[in-house]
Amino acid sequence: MTKDISTDIALIGAGTAGLYALREVRRARRDFVLIDHGPLGTTCARVGCMPSKIALHAGGLWAARDDMKRFGVAGTEGLTLDRARTWAALRSQRDRFADSAAGKARSAAGDRLIDGRARFVEPTVLEVEGPDGRTIVRAQAVVIATGSRPVRPAWLDALGSRVVTTDTFFELPALPDRIGILGLGAIGLEMGLALARLGVTVTGADVAGTVAGLSDTELSARAIERFGREMDLWLGAPASVAADGDALRMRSGDRETRVDLLLAALGRRPNVDGLGLAEAGFALDARGTPLYDPATLQLGRHPVFIAGDANAQRPLMHEAADEGAIAGYNAARDGIVRFRRRVPLAIAFTDPDVCAVGAHSDELDPGRTVIGSASGDANGRSRILGGEASLLRLYADRTDGRLLGAAMVATGGEHLAHLLAWAIQRGETVRSLLEMPVYHPVIEEMLPSALQDIARQLGRDDALPIGQRAEAAP
Amino acid sequence: MTKDISTDIALIGAGTAGLYALREVRRARRDFVLIDHGPLGTTCARVGCMPSKIALHAGGLWAARDDMKRFGVAGTEGLTLDRARTWAALRSQRDRFADSAAGKARSAAGDRLIDGRARFVEPTVLEVEGPDGRTIVRAQAVVIATGSRPVRPAWLDALGSRVVTTDTFFELPALPDRIGILGLGAIGLEMGLALARLGVTVTGADVAGTVAGLSDTELSARAIERFGREMDLWLGAPASVAADGDALRMRSGDRETRVDLLLAALGRRPNVDGLGLAEAGFALDARGTPLYDPATLQLGRHPVFIAGDANAQRPLMHEAADEGAIAGYNAARDGIVRFRRRVPLAIAFTDPDVCAVGAHSDELDPGRTVIGSASGDANGRSRILGGEASLLRLYADRTDGRLLGAAMVATGGEHLAHLLAWAIQRGETVRSLLEMPVYHPVIEEMLPSALQDIARQLGRDDALPIGQRAEAAP
Repeated sequence: MTKDISTDIALIGAGTAGLYALREVRRARRDFVLIDHGPLGTTCARVGCMPSKIALHAGGLWAARDDMKRFGVAGTEGLTLDRARTWAALRSQRDRFADSAAGKARSAAGDRLIDGRARFVEPTVLEVEGPDGRTIVRAQAVVIATGSRPVRPAWLDALGSRVVTTDTFFELPALPDRIGILGLGAIGLEMGLALARLGVTVTGADVAGTVAGLSDTELSARAIERFGREMDLWLGAPASVAADGDALRMRSGDRETRVDLLLAALGRRPNVDGLGLAEAGFALDARGTPLYDPATLQLGRHPVFIAGDANAQRPLMHEAADEGAIAGYNAARDGIVRFRRRVPLAIAFTDPDVCAVGAHSDELDPGRTVIGSASGDANGRSRILGGEASLLRLYADRTDGRLLGAAMVATGGEHLAHLLAWAIQRGETVRSLLEMPVYHPVIEEMLPSALQDIARQLGRDDALPIGQRAEAAP
Repeated sequence: MTKDISTDIALIGAGTAGLYALREVRRARRDFVLIDHGPLGTTCARVGCMPSKIALHAGGLWAARDDMKRFGVAGTEGLTLDRARTWAALRSQRDRFADSAAGKARSAAGDRLIDGRARFVEPTVLEVEGPDGRTIVRAQAVVIATGSRPVRPAWLDALGSRVVTTDTFFELPALPDRIGILGLGAIGLEMGLALARLGVTVTGADVAGTVAGLSDTELSARAIERFGREMDLWLGAPASVAADGDALRMRSGDRETRVDLLLAALGRRPNVDGLGLAEAGFALDARGTPLYDPATLQLGRHPVFIAGDANAQRPLMHEAADEGAIAGYNAARDGIVRFRRRVPLAIAFTDPDVCAVGAHSDELDPGRTVIGSASGDANGRSRILGGEASLLRLYADRTDGRLLGAAMVATGGEHLAHLLAWAIQRGETVRSLLEMPVYHPVIEEMLPSALQDIARQLGRDDALPIGQRAEAAP
């Protein structure tokens, strides 16, 4: 039996983007259906941001033993770690986040939630196959918010269950003693360090010569030196993995090691291949991602919008939320609004965190850019927190001192990154930022240090003390 | 033998304010002497910010045992803490900070450093008594940057060495099992919690009904509940302490306990009583603090300026740095400049941190103010970090949505406080701040949560999704 439903807006996907889109649809008092094949609970809560942050937190606790000893704790040699219990505790907390996200989806959608997989028949007609049968949904507008899944190249299939992705990794009943990681973007690096801190021997490989996407060569070198103390980093060459008895043999160039398990962290792929987009008449790029306007999220001139990981533009939770709101707004209202986006902000929570804000170093004109640095070994709080290796780099326009971007490998970097992102979005300059209050002793003091480095390079007038403002011009 | 020296600028005190003043004097290429009776090294580095942050760090490490157990660590019951070693490790790291500060003073002043205690003979003539004899310093201008010392009421003298202040506390060869703390401002609360986390039984008393100067009653209640889990808090009534055999008996109302040691954390008193200010003709207030203009730091019309803790205005290290620069600038240049100050920012690093930014709740007109809140139990990252008790309160102007102030009891609050201080200094509004990027999962997400709470109360137009900006008006 096929049900036939007409509605104003059909939302495909009950993840972050879909739920933010739904909020806009409800705000516009439009009718809707929300289609999701489950499990409910966002990528972030189930298999992304949240379990990885819990893993890093647990790793940090176990790795604190040396610092405890330094401060007079005896008996740390007698401590043991049961990593199966670590992972069970992780899942227990993760499940609370995921259940909360799933509950939000259920309560927001109510009886407008359809369990099933959607496929376009026409640009505004969907066929949904689910456990309760087939439903045809005829909508005035559609939001595609189907998310993404980990890339898993076919050549890894031969290794069977010895290869995991973040979709399965957190479900492991126990953690192995040795793990290989393919791909050292933010996810691979975060998981590698979490595991290394939990006592797992980690070998990470990436065909790129850097980690976490760092384009600034000084920062890349600092990150490789710092993280290389905790895990083996095989960078700049392809790696291969082959079965070797019960284990796996991982090779890159003349380097070789045995590992028990491989985590493939090779990026994420948008879930658009099962939607029948081409057949329904949408224009696609060579990879099968639909062509859309990034300012409106609209597909061509269809009343169809694509948000979140599904559009492969900015696969980050906070961007998915923004895109969901944009897509939902444009789907639910008359007229299409072009939206401005927030300043780009990327954080790997690796302590020292790897963060990039605004323009990346390789996007800037070297002749017009001045770079200021600050180092953790000159920051008192960083020294207390073990962050001596921290390095902050600020990129400013040489002509007007405007802050263009920043990147860092820094303990507490996630917090510096927010200050910098807000400053860049507001168009602050080196001098205007030096007027801002900064307490002591805080990680944030690295900002005035790096800003003063730029001010010195730009040369300064002989006027007021740096960072001070007169009530009226002197 | 008396030496007689003429110079451009005499700087009294080689602490934070004095060194920042010196920088301005050198930048103006003026001659100077820097007078300090030692020990060199700032209050912050020797007995203030730095050792207290190390103590809190050490306390946090020892207190992490329960969280370690939750994540699969066995054997924590076998751990022991040697608090004498904790305190020795603290001193070792503290000494590196203090030595560095002392070295900066020596290298900045060179042979212009005079070891001794200064006393005004006339407004610009000083008599300095030191180990090398007496020096008369005749200057064109003077900067008073003599800092402060802990208040120690005379009635405590009877208790002898069983009473310490922060001047002596970090020098203790060992820590007692039970300690009393008089005064629960930022310093008393920080030290009480550091000690409680190191396993010391702590009783803290304050005649005020709140801790860390919190004026917002909801935050005060939250702080008392949260910190009361770790130490006894006797609030709202005077406390007495009397010798009791080898120990001390502490009483307040019908509460009574025995402690081994008392930390008097009753505030700090400016070091101006030995300067001979009245005799030299300066006008003083009833407490003996010289009258001065807070925008110029000038004493009357004398070419004399007072900066840092010595003026009892904003006894915080970053404010002392600003005031040093202002005083040094005005002392070294022709004409007196009136300076604007940065937005007030106060942080107790108590995890959850107690922070206040901009206007305090009791300074605001309730009829014109709207308050937004966010709670740690609704913030994912706070839940991972054990910060469920966090509470953030934002104060905004009801008429234009401008952010006026903020206060909080929050894990990671020190970082929220910086974002808020910068936002207030820039005149941001609830709506403009909702346009700023915020990553996930971060403590910083409490800001949009609290801002949205205000936006809901102010009512919203039916235009764009909250926090989104159009390229052009829709």
